[in-house]
Amino acid sequence: MIREETIAIGALELECGESLPSVKQRVTIYGTPSRDGSNVVLVEHALTGSSRAAEWWPGIIGEGALFDPGAWCAIGINAVGSCYGSTGPVDPAPDGVPYGDRFPRVTVRDIVRAERRTLRELGLERVELAIGGSLGGMRALQWAADAPECVGTAVAIGAHDHHSAMGIALNALQRDALALHPSRGLRLARKIAMLTYKSDELLRRRHDRRRDRNGASRFDIEGYLEHQADLIESRMDGPSYTALTHAMDSFDLRDVRIAREGAPRFIFVGITADWLFRAEDVRAAARRFALRGLDARYLQLASAHGHDAFLAETGALRALLEPYLVRCAR
Amino acid sequence: MIREETIAIGALELECGESLPSVKQRVTIYGTPSRDGSNVVLVEHALTGSSRAAEWWPGIIGEGALFDPGAWCAIGINAVGSCYGSTGPVDPAPDGVPYGDRFPRVTVRDIVRAERRTLRELGLERVELAIGGSLGGMRALQWAADAPECVGTAVAIGAHDHHSAMGIALNALQRDALALHPSRGLRLARKIAMLTYKSDELLRRRHDRRRDRNGASRFDIEGYLEHQADLIESRMDGPSYTALTHAMDSFDLRDVRIAREGAPRFIFVGITADWLFRAEDVRAAARRFALRGLDARYLQLASAHGHDAFLAETGALRALLEPYLVRCAR
Repeated sequence: MIREETIAIGALELECGESLPSVKQRVTIYGTPSRDGSNVVLVEHALTGSSRAAEWWPGIIGEGALFDPGAWCAIGINAVGSCYGSTGPVDPAPDGVPYGDRFPRVTVRDIVRAERRTLRELGLERVELAIGGSLGGMRALQWAADAPECVGTAVAIGAHDHHSAMGIALNALQRDALALHPSRGLRLARKIAMLTYKSDELLRRRHDRRRDRNGASRFDIEGYLEHQADLIESRMDGPSYTALTHAMDSFDLRDVRIAREGAPRFIFVGITADWLFRAEDVRAAARRFALRGLDARYLQLASAHGHDAFLAETGALRALLEPYLVRCAR
Repeated sequence: MIREETIAIGALELECGESLPSVKQRVTIYGTPSRDGSNVVLVEHALTGSSRAAEWWPGIIGEGALFDPGAWCAIGINAVGSCYGSTGPVDPAPDGVPYGDRFPRVTVRDIVRAERRTLRELGLERVELAIGGSLGGMRALQWAADAPECVGTAVAIGAHDHHSAMGIALNALQRDALALHPSRGLRLARKIAMLTYKSDELLRRRHDRRRDRNGASRFDIEGYLEHQADLIESRMDGPSYTALTHAMDSFDLRDVRIAREGAPRFIFVGITADWLFRAEDVRAAARRFALRGLDARYLQLASAHGHDAFLAETGALRALLEPYLVRCAR
């Protein structure tokens, strides 16, 4: 059973000092939640994802997947600042004109606070699991940091406890591109991002120095990037992209204290060929959490794909996670 | 003794089928060449360099440096397509208007052919050493491939025998930026490039998540990138940048045959934290050359800096190279 709802959660005070007067949250629910939330898995999307987790994460969410709606209830919530049904830059500001680039800076903490209120509206105080990759992993960890009593296990894949200087820099360049031209800038931003999601090895294997089939004046890899740019133009806008990259930049849990008593379990998954969120940094974050006495485990997804392996290699990811998650299911 | 000259080498037929009717080459000469060229080191600049090697490579070129003009004669030649005195897009086309983006596609092989003719004009048929990093390393290797009898030793640092799919893709994005806006596009192209020249580790150490001293609304790494963008605007133009990135993309010696008899010696230097020209790929190129029976050696510059280590860590680079080069000096 799949159910979609748009839930009004009222005004949201933001960390930046501004506030959003009337926030809606787009929610997709796969399965039926048990009253105590013990079968609920919160599925957190990344930069360009939506609440429809089964669409962007087949193999992990959906019938026959790791989180089958027969046993689990998977809930996706579109992040504040995004453009897939939750309040974001495409929505009108109080003056009736869409926010666009006037949309206030939201942080991962703001996004997660809105999600907590959304789940409360659904009658849920607690989730058994919060899971996501990249920005989705940051959101899962932020849940665990801000409401440790409300999360059983937080799973962060290709994400760690802060956004790095390289990550911040790459996001800044993508926003620079958006500032140069509304649509062509979004195309370039996406192309930059795509390279950070793939490994040198993968591009070598798939494209090497082959010429493009549509014209020898460019290389195959250039054609691939143009194709990716076409896709993003049809499904995202610059101001939303800007809002969510700023949110990623805000993320830093390195100094956050989480009481050991009743704390969630943490699973960090590093991807070997990921150069945006390097496996060694994910491992280091798990170690930092463990050194604070928290139940933090590091798992490694061996993949030549790069950061996007959490989306591209769901079979391997499922095999890696399943032994650690099966005991959560009731 | 430093001497600068602009040498006319006449028309240059290009691999693309077009030709440049009247090519000039800007040359900087440090020291005095011996008649047989046995003390001559050809210093090949990278994407944004010039013939003035002692300016961009102190510690390697100049008094007291690895190649001291007392013992050596170091010669820098500005590449065709660049903007530091050799024929490039800023020069007038036959119609009297600067070429700009109409400048024909030049390859590394074209650039090197122009250099050979330039040295011949100087009365030199042979160089003891050809050395460079990045695009400069490609040029050194291309010399050895095209005129093996004219080079004693080719030294390529942070470069290997072809430009990779990732390298091609990153160059394409920089050209995309240039196509969006003439000056702001060049700024963004340079910022993208700077990230490829530095390592995650270096950015973490130098900038981490610190706020910019000029305003807390941005991070320190963003201010650093703005500063680098300011610098490039004052010294390079978009069409030259475009021409030389296309030249890099053209580079592929993987299928080139070099006769063992009288072939140059090859020294490949990989940089441990370089993610643009990965050390493992540089090592693989050295192995490919050795498997063809060529005298090819791999050295490794251990540096957390990244690709730019060939410019930033000249002390360590000198210490690494000196034992292998001393026997060349007469």
